[in-house]
Amino acid sequence: MTRFEPNLRIPGPTPLPPSVREAGARQMINHRGTDFSALLGRIQLGMRPFFGTTGDIAILSCAGTGGLEAAIVNTLSPGDAVLGVSIGAFGDRFASIAEAYGAKVDRMAAEWGWAAAPDEVRERLGRGEYRAVLLTHNETSTGVMNRIPELAATIREASPGSLILVDSVSALGAVPFELDAWGIDLVVTGSQKAWMAAPGMAMIAASERGWAAMERAKMPRYYLDLRRHRASLANGETPWTPAIAVAFQVDEGVRLMNEEGKAAVFARHAACAAATRAGLEGLGFELFADAADRSLTVTAAKIPEGFEWKPFNTELKARGLVVAGGQGKLTGKVFRVGHLGAVSVDDILGAMATLEEVSIQFGRDVVPGHAVEAAERAAVAAHGAGAAAG
Amino acid sequence: MTRFEPNLRIPGPTPLPPSVREAGARQMINHRGTDFSALLGRIQLGMRPFFGTTGDIAILSCAGTGGLEAAIVNTLSPGDAVLGVSIGAFGDRFASIAEAYGAKVDRMAAEWGWAAAPDEVRERLGRGEYRAVLLTHNETSTGVMNRIPELAATIREASPGSLILVDSVSALGAVPFELDAWGIDLVVTGSQKAWMAAPGMAMIAASERGWAAMERAKMPRYYLDLRRHRASLANGETPWTPAIAVAFQVDEGVRLMNEEGKAAVFARHAACAAATRAGLEGLGFELFADAADRSLTVTAAKIPEGFEWKPFNTELKARGLVVAGGQGKLTGKVFRVGHLGAVSVDDILGAMATLEEVSIQFGRDVVPGHAVEAAERAAVAAHGAGAAAG
Repeated sequence: MTRFEPNLRIPGPTPLPPSVREAGARQMINHRGTDFSALLGRIQLGMRPFFGTTGDIAILSCAGTGGLEAAIVNTLSPGDAVLGVSIGAFGDRFASIAEAYGAKVDRMAAEWGWAAAPDEVRERLGRGEYRAVLLTHNETSTGVMNRIPELAATIREASPGSLILVDSVSALGAVPFELDAWGIDLVVTGSQKAWMAAPGMAMIAASERGWAAMERAKMPRYYLDLRRHRASLANGETPWTPAIAVAFQVDEGVRLMNEEGKAAVFARHAACAAATRAGLEGLGFELFADAADRSLTVTAAKIPEGFEWKPFNTELKARGLVVAGGQGKLTGKVFRVGHLGAVSVDDILGAMATLEEVSIQFGRDVVPGHAVEAAERAAVAAHGAGAAAG
Repeated sequence: MTRFEPNLRIPGPTPLPPSVREAGARQMINHRGTDFSALLGRIQLGMRPFFGTTGDIAILSCAGTGGLEAAIVNTLSPGDAVLGVSIGAFGDRFASIAEAYGAKVDRMAAEWGWAAAPDEVRERLGRGEYRAVLLTHNETSTGVMNRIPELAATIREASPGSLILVDSVSALGAVPFELDAWGIDLVVTGSQKAWMAAPGMAMIAASERGWAAMERAKMPRYYLDLRRHRASLANGETPWTPAIAVAFQVDEGVRLMNEEGKAAVFARHAACAAATRAGLEGLGFELFADAADRSLTVTAAKIPEGFEWKPFNTELKARGLVVAGGQGKLTGKVFRVGHLGAVSVDDILGAMATLEEVSIQFGRDVVPGHAVEAAERAAVAAHGAGAAAG
C-alpha cells in the first residue's frame, strides 16, 4: 500500500511541519541587518521558557556535537578533572570531546539501558574533586532519559564547586527543563530535535557561573567561542555568518511551539512516548530501556534473537516507515523509534500499523489491530495525565 | 519606485535561485540512508571540477570561519611556525585562528587595497622556516583578489616544505581554482558564496600532502576533525548530523553550475565584476582596490570625504538595494557590492540604477543613465573576452 510521504521516525532529524518547510525556502537576507536581528531576538524570547532561563541563549551554526564541543572548550582548561557520567554512545562522545582537549576524564558508565544513579554519582564525587560533571539528559542510543533535577541536586550538594554541563540535544523543548531552577551551568540542544527545524544549529544557555567559567577557561577555541557569541548577541548578530535558512526554520518552529503552549508540547510528547511503548510491546517487541527511566523522545526495542532485521527494515522502508538501527555496541541488537519534534499520535499509530503489516508479512505472530489499539489507548491515558499536569 | 524583491548585493550570503529555494523546503530525510549518501556523492562529483581536484571534498556543517579553523587545527601543531599572509580582515582572522591554537604566527600584512606581492612572500620565506603559509584568495573586506597560482609557485620554490593553506571562501566556484595543478595543500570554501546556497556548510579539499599532515597534526580537534569526515565520506556519510537542508540547496546549486558550465560561470562573474566597476566609476565613486588585482566577486568603493553614507544607505535599502558597508578598519570608509553566486548582469544594472536614483536624490552630480550604460558596455566587453577564453 502506497504511503505518500515517508513516516520519518528516527530520533532526529525530525519531520518539518509545513510552515517550517516553507520558511526553509525563503530568500537570503543580510545577516548584519535589522531583519536578522529581529529574528534572533524572537528566537531568544521564544526559547527561554523551554530552557527555563532568563539569560542569553547562544545560537551556533553547527551540529549538536559541535554544541557539545562548545560546552567543553568554553568552560574547561587542559588538565581539568572531569567526571563523565555516561549511559550510552552520546555520553561516551561528550567524555571523548573533553579528552580530545586535554581534560582528565573519569568515566562513570551505567550499563546501557539504565539511567545514571544519583547515589553512584554522589559516591564518585566523594572520591575526588571535579571541575565539571558531564550529564546526558536523553541518551538517544539507548532510549533512556536521566533524571536531571535529581542528578543536579546531588552534584550541587556533594560537590558544590563542580560545573554541571548537560547534553540535552534530544530532550530540551520536548520535556521540562529548568536551567535556572535546577542549577544547571550549561545546556546544549539542537535545531533538528524538539525544535522541528532542519539540522545545522546548536543552542546553548548557561548560568552566571557558567558564563564566568568561560572567562577563565583555557582550552583553545575560536569558531565555537561562546564569549564572542554572547557579545554579538547584544548587537543582534552572530559572530560568524549564521545558517540563515536553518534560523528561518527555527524561528518558525519556536513560534509553533509557543502557539501550542509548553504544557501541551510536553503532554503531546508524553502521549507519543506512551503510544510507542504500548504499540511496540503489543507487537511483541521487548523494550530495551529500564522501565523506570524510558525516554520521552525515543524508544529502543530489542531485536529478537535470530530475527532477520535487515530484510524486515528494508520492507519497512519500502512501505514508507523510516526507523533507526542500533548505534555503537547496540548495532544489530536494537531498533529505535523517534517521537520528538513535529510528531502526533497519528504518526505513531501509522508507524505501528506499518510495523504490524510487515510483521504479518514476515510471519511474526501478531493480531491485526492489536498494537494500534494498545498504542491509542496508552496515548489517551497519557495525554489525559499530561493535560491534567499541565 | 517599488522593487518587488530586494537586490541582495552583499558578498554573501548571495541570493538563491528559485530551484535552490525550493530545495530548502524539502522534507527531512535520514542522514544515514541511501538518499543522503547519493546526494553527498553528487556534491563531490559536481564540485571537483571547480576545486580542480580528483580527491575528496569534506563537507562540514559550519560557517566559512569554521572551515578556516578546520584548515588550521587539522594540519598544524602548537608551536608550529606559520606565515600568515594577510591583505585584509579575513587574512587577519585566518592568522588569529592559528594563534588561538598555539601556532607561532609571523604576519606579512599588505596595505589594505593591495594584493600580496610574490617577491615579498619569497623574501619572508627566506628569513625563516615555516610549517605553513596562510593565503587569502579573495579578500572580501577590501575587494582584492590574490594571484594564487603565482603565490603558490613562489612558495613551492622558496620553501618546498611549507604547507599552503588557502581561504577561498568567497572565490572558489566563481573563478578558476586548480588545487592539484597549483600545488595547494588545502582550500576552504563556503556554501553561501559561489555555490548559491544558504550559509551553513564549508567545503574543504586537500592534497595528499595535506591529508598526510593531518595524521601528524597535534592541535586538538573533534567536531572539525577532517580525518573523521574523510572516513565517513567513504561510507557516504558525515560523522555528525549534517545541515541537511543546506546540503539539499548545495546539491541543487552545484547542479545548476555544472549545467551552466565552468567557463560560462567564470565568464558571467567576470562580466558582472566589470559591469560593477564601470558602473560605480560612472557614478563618480573611486574604487578602493589596486586596479591590477581587483576582485571578481566583490567590489569596494570609497565613500567620498564628507559624504553622509548612513542616510544614503538607508535610502538604498528603502529602494530595495542591499550593499555591504566597510569591515574592520574600513568601516565608514568604503561600501562593497557583491557580485558572486546567482548574479547576472541585470542585477548589476539594477543596482547601478538604484545607486544613480539615490545619488540624484542626494544631490550628487550624476548624469541619468550614464552609469548603467557604462556598466552594460563593460559587461559586453568582458563577457566577449570571457567567452572567448572559455
